Amino acid sequence: MPNPTTVPAGATVADVGEFGLVRAFVGRFEQGAQVYVGPGDDAAVLRAPRGHVVVSTDLLVEGRHFRREWADAKDIGRRAAAQNLSDINAMGGRATALTVGLALPRDLPAQWVLDLADGIAEEGALVGASIVGGDLTAGSEVVIAVTVIGQCEVAPVLRSGARAGDVLAIAGRQGWAAAGLAVLARGFRSPRKLVEAHQRPQPPYDAGPAAAAGGATSMIDVSDGLVADVGHLADDSGVSIDIDSSAFPLDEPLQAVGAALGVDPMQFVLGGGEDHPLVATFPAGVALPVGFRPIGRVSQAGDGPAVTVDGTAYEGSPGHTHF
Amino acid sequence: MPNPTTVPAGATVADVGEFGLVRAFVGRFEQGAQVYVGPGDDAAVLRAPRGHVVVSTDLLVEGRHFRREWADAKDIGRRAAAQNLSDINAMGGRATALTVGLALPRDLPAQWVLDLADGIAEEGALVGASIVGGDLTAGSEVVIAVTVIGQCEVAPVLRSGARAGDVLAIAGRQGWAAAGLAVLARGFRSPRKLVEAHQRPQPPYDAGPAAAAGGATSMIDVSDGLVADVGHLADDSGVSIDIDSSAFPLDEPLQAVGAALGVDPMQFVLGGGEDHPLVATFPAGVALPVGFRPIGRVSQAGDGPAVTVDGTAYEGSPGHTHF
Repeated sequence: MPNPTTVPAGATVADVGEFGLVRAFVGRFEQGAQVYVGPGDDAAVLRAPRGHVVVSTDLLVEGRHFRREWADAKDIGRRAAAQNLSDINAMGGRATALTVGLALPRDLPAQWVLDLADGIAEEGALVGASIVGGDLTAGSEVVIAVTVIGQCEVAPVLRSGARAGDVLAIAGRQGWAAAGLAVLARGFRSPRKLVEAHQRPQPPYDAGPAAAAGGATSMIDVSDGLVADVGHLADDSGVSIDIDSSAFPLDEPLQAVGAALGVDPMQFVLGGGEDHPLVATFPAGVALPVGFRPIGRVSQAGDGPAVTVDGTAYEGSPGHTHF
Repeated sequence: MPNPTTVPAGATVADVGEFGLVRAFVGRFEQGAQVYVGPGDDAAVLRAPRGHVVVSTDLLVEGRHFRREWADAKDIGRRAAAQNLSDINAMGGRATALTVGLALPRDLPAQWVLDLADGIAEEGALVGASIVGGDLTAGSEVVIAVTVIGQCEVAPVLRSGARAGDVLAIAGRQGWAAAGLAVLARGFRSPRKLVEAHQRPQPPYDAGPAAAAGGATSMIDVSDGLVADVGHLADDSGVSIDIDSSAFPLDEPLQAVGAALGVDPMQFVLGGGEDHPLVATFPAGVALPVGFRPIGRVSQAGDGPAVTVDGTAYEGSPGHTHF
């Protein structure tokens, strides 16, 4: 009997069949101590958390959120998990479990599905989250639906708590993934560091709980674009926020890509999403938690735009939409 | 300013745009007392449950799990929610929250999405579950990804606990939805009762917690087919189970459809899924909880098939697969 966590070389999804694929898929997921019942029953069961339960869900559609020719399945899995885990991070929580729903074309290589599973599991393992359930079904394009469940041991940090006088701070890299995407979109594969930043974002998973414990008044992860997401904080909090662009060093690879593509590299920083850093506000005078550095200032809402860069309206694209 | 929970008549998903559609979609969901933070932040936050957290996820793909010409959006929403809520029911739990991820063609009527939302919310309201989050994105076919989160106040009832001597019992209707689907698949619209059974299943939501409190040793909801799902109980428990077909009265509409289509109507009962009744095992002599009736008997695993009907192997299709 073959190892149930592998599939025959070259086999498609249709060759392996639903039950064989589910068995191999599920067999790749280790279950943490927080899991009472893992995959295989009608539902998964988690031990009761401390504090609150945090939930977030995201869909990734082939050709829109990822391209199989631009990243291998494992990296796509890591990114699918990362963007969901980042949402829990942005509440100040810690993820405990993931569920994965997949729509799969029948002629997709079955191995691709297992590599995706490995990527999701590896990213989840960075924060101790287990893949506890899922659903595999046929579809005409690959759709990856990830839901993440976590816990907030202290009060969750919402988007709505920023106050005039607060300091705006960031934890994590910003702009690299957007520059990597621009490189890939033009058919290039380097600078390698930027391409990898797009393929494998590295959200600062410890920064969310640290911000919650450290007095953050509001928080969000950058997934639409820095200006767009800081705009969500400003709008939901009813304040204005100014971003200080000099707080962002334009690292050498960003400068190189900007020059090669004829683009101001600051656009990657201000408009880019998908690096999944955290942006949070803290009362002035509070020591910023480890990993955060100041990038701006909160003031009372005025007549101008809710978000400014160096005191003036931002003219570039603040982010992207999905339709 | 238009009411944010409506869209202009005739508008498509692309016309309304991501943010307008999300606003209208989210505006249709009332939030229960168990919800600390609803839609609109990075993640939803639920108050800590008693007991265990239960999680299940399902994907529905247009043309495979539903057809827009066979059911209206509200019924599709109700069914999408029902099949997930039923999974929580099958653990003996009660659902508290749902998340909804949607991939949507750009030319889809925006109103269709809101009607779907209403159906999901209505079905959730039957058990007090709120829609707390989701993700809307573009796709080339409609994909509905629903994740449900609930709680088990007593120990969850798994598939693996059936013991020789137990009684097999069912709560809820079985076979009607399959007969309704057979009717629709041949282009008919009646008997109306069966078509409605397919379009709007009525899972016995009180029966799951009642079974858990009443000593059920194993439980599953029928979603693949009665013989197939009883087979899951038998396999996971390492027992044999015999189904007594005389325990299923062949109601008049089932007989009528069987005669009209030249099919033994017992096939709808034994092979049909999608009614989402619960099948559970109880120790002999235990009073069955309200809503359950006996339909068979558990014995030690032998050399024959794990599931028999009236003492012999079942020759029909036990259920269906998804690839």
